[in-house]
Amino acid sequence: MLIVQKYGGTSVGNPERIKNVARRVAKYREAGHQIVVVVSAMSGVTDNLIKLAKDIMPLPSEREMDMLLATGEQTTIALTAMALHAMGLDAISLTGAQAGIVTDGVHTKAKIRNITPKQVHELLDQGHVVIVAGFQGQTPEGHITTLGRGGSDLTAIAMAAALKAELCQIYTDVDGVYTADPRIVPNARKLKEISYDEMLELAGAGAKVMQSRSVEFAKKFGVVFEVRSSLNDNPGTIVKEETESMESVVIRGVSLDKNQAKVTLAHVPDKPGVAAQIFKALGDANLNVDMIVQTASHGGIAATDISFTLDKPDLPKARKVLEAVKADAGIKEVVADENIGKLSIVGVGMRSHSGVAAKMFETLANEGVNIQMISTSEIKISVVVDLAKGESAMRAVHAVFIG
Amino acid sequence: MLIVQKYGGTSVGNPERIKNVARRVAKYREAGHQIVVVVSAMSGVTDNLIKLAKDIMPLPSEREMDMLLATGEQTTIALTAMALHAMGLDAISLTGAQAGIVTDGVHTKAKIRNITPKQVHELLDQGHVVIVAGFQGQTPEGHITTLGRGGSDLTAIAMAAALKAELCQIYTDVDGVYTADPRIVPNARKLKEISYDEMLELAGAGAKVMQSRSVEFAKKFGVVFEVRSSLNDNPGTIVKEETESMESVVIRGVSLDKNQAKVTLAHVPDKPGVAAQIFKALGDANLNVDMIVQTASHGGIAATDISFTLDKPDLPKARKVLEAVKADAGIKEVVADENIGKLSIVGVGMRSHSGVAAKMFETLANEGVNIQMISTSEIKISVVVDLAKGESAMRAVHAVFIG
Repeated sequence: MLIVQKYGGTSVGNPERIKNVARRVAKYREAGHQIVVVVSAMSGVTDNLIKLAKDIMPLPSEREMDMLLATGEQTTIALTAMALHAMGLDAISLTGAQAGIVTDGVHTKAKIRNITPKQVHELLDQGHVVIVAGFQGQTPEGHITTLGRGGSDLTAIAMAAALKAELCQIYTDVDGVYTADPRIVPNARKLKEISYDEMLELAGAGAKVMQSRSVEFAKKFGVVFEVRSSLNDNPGTIVKEETESMESVVIRGVSLDKNQAKVTLAHVPDKPGVAAQIFKALGDANLNVDMIVQTASHGGIAATDISFTLDKPDLPKARKVLEAVKADAGIKEVVADENIGKLSIVGVGMRSHSGVAAKMFETLANEGVNIQMISTSEIKISVVVDLAKGESAMRAVHAVFIG
Repeated sequence: MLIVQKYGGTSVGNPERIKNVARRVAKYREAGHQIVVVVSAMSGVTDNLIKLAKDIMPLPSEREMDMLLATGEQTTIALTAMALHAMGLDAISLTGAQAGIVTDGVHTKAKIRNITPKQVHELLDQGHVVIVAGFQGQTPEGHITTLGRGGSDLTAIAMAAALKAELCQIYTDVDGVYTADPRIVPNARKLKEISYDEMLELAGAGAKVMQSRSVEFAKKFGVVFEVRSSLNDNPGTIVKEETESMESVVIRGVSLDKNQAKVTLAHVPDKPGVAAQIFKALGDANLNVDMIVQTASHGGIAATDISFTLDKPDLPKARKVLEAVKADAGIKEVVADENIGKLSIVGVGMRSHSGVAAKMFETLANEGVNIQMISTSEIKISVVVDLAKGESAMRAVHAVFIG
């Protein structure tokens, strides 16, 4: 069996941990599998490199940042290969470029264009464990690029797709994907399986296991992967296309995102182009808006209220942008609230079950939790609630839908 | 004018020093020159990487050491490019591989096979300062290699040859090449010029400015280079082929190597094959022998004495090797002496001046210095003397030949 394993920065954070990774790889190798290992930079290394760069200039060139940051993973692959050698295994390290990972030229957040896995296949066939630097690739012209946040997961999933690997394991510091954050919901349980769509909605809802782009890539290329812990041998959570055999539940998981703020624009003129003007200004400033709700105008007043949420750290910047367009857009007032939580329930099962929203709202009402905003997708319902009541609301919703 | 500048590890040892390098490069660039900058790893970085590797295993694979160590220069090139950007200059960094440096596959001490300077020329023509990682290259198959000790000097000189640069400047922490070490000989003076051959003999005689291989490469390809300081703007020393116009002196420089030990093999049978047996055993153990002197056998005794010198740290290993072959080779006794110095005078002028050796020996006799071994080449005379008298002997010889 051909297995791609990915280990993050904390899993390779020092020589001792790299040896642990080697021991795990050796176990799979000895069971007769072919192994490709994708590793991140040792934890802390990337931050140190960024600090060095900032000591030189505040806004370094993105091409040169990629040249600089790519050394982080290159260091880890060499050390990981050595650790495998020390255990008597054949192993060889490859940079992203050497592994055939070709990207576009958008430095610091490049997209993988294609992977030529010929050399990796040859090395595997020669009996090597192949160690590939995560997070990096090169353009067709030979410039080194990096893939941005969550890039090493993406490398692993893309390599698994290109190599037609039977299994892709994402090793991390959590056991797998849970029905809710166990620190908040004590009887949350680990999921055996979850569909790509549910995983995507949970990622979008603030669950921090993986970046959406890696899950999207896996969904697009049908890469089945497992999220599991590098600290123990427990089976993790399999992420794959929704199937008949998948445990039939209405709600797969509940998440609470405490990192959002709510902005309300009061008395926005109810005429074409106003919303576009506002959200274009926010988009131009690189501000990612999440939920957007617009109430219907009422009582003959040609004005409406628009509320939206965005990441809390982006709030000061958003305020500035909104102050600049306020007069021109005819907005009467901008009100921000940082004391909110976004509570979401996710599950493909809700497609075929009516009354899920009603049951969620009723649960919240019984808890005395006021709903400030509602937004729904086909397999997710999100509500904005008072931050102080977020955790108890989450426990109540989890109890009703999951147990 | 196309200039290649090389900066060593101390010259780029921290962000502040990298900015100094950028200021110097900018000055040349503003004068209208095209500049290729070759940099080493920041001082200390390579040692830290070696330590990391040793924490994983005592004798790491040489291929993986190259993968690991190559990150050192890659970090410096990115930071140097940023520092030039901060001054408003166009600059772009290239790894050894990207700069077209192709080597053989002898990891950790690869030899440069050829350089394809097409991309560097293109980038220069586009107005960039091109920053190239020293010390590294890649094999035709795409494996990353390093060039071993003095590798960054070699990169600079090889790039200058491939690019047909008008000037190659080796920036270091000394002002240039001196007639003798100024710490020992206070009236030593900096040389304006020196020939490749003299530079080579001085390097071999323990002067630490540059490794022989870089000088040999420069001689082979006729690369004129200047050794100068990165701490000031003083002109340095030009190293080039011997010419008529070169200042006509008998002796260019005097050096004292205190890092050698002398080994004497007493009563070695005076028959064919014995010396070969001894020095083959030493060579097989990777021990570099420097001077070798064999006295003629005398008085009907079919035995001779053989003395040789080697690096002091290699002495324990040499003793073991010699103990192993002693009986078989018929050696009566092995005597080692660590308290010696090798004093050398170097100059192409001695070719056409007779009596140079006699004058040196007379000077030493007048100082009461006993000569233990003598070895000569066409442009060098080396003698082994008592270590305690080495420095005063050096001053006396310098005074007589140079002033």
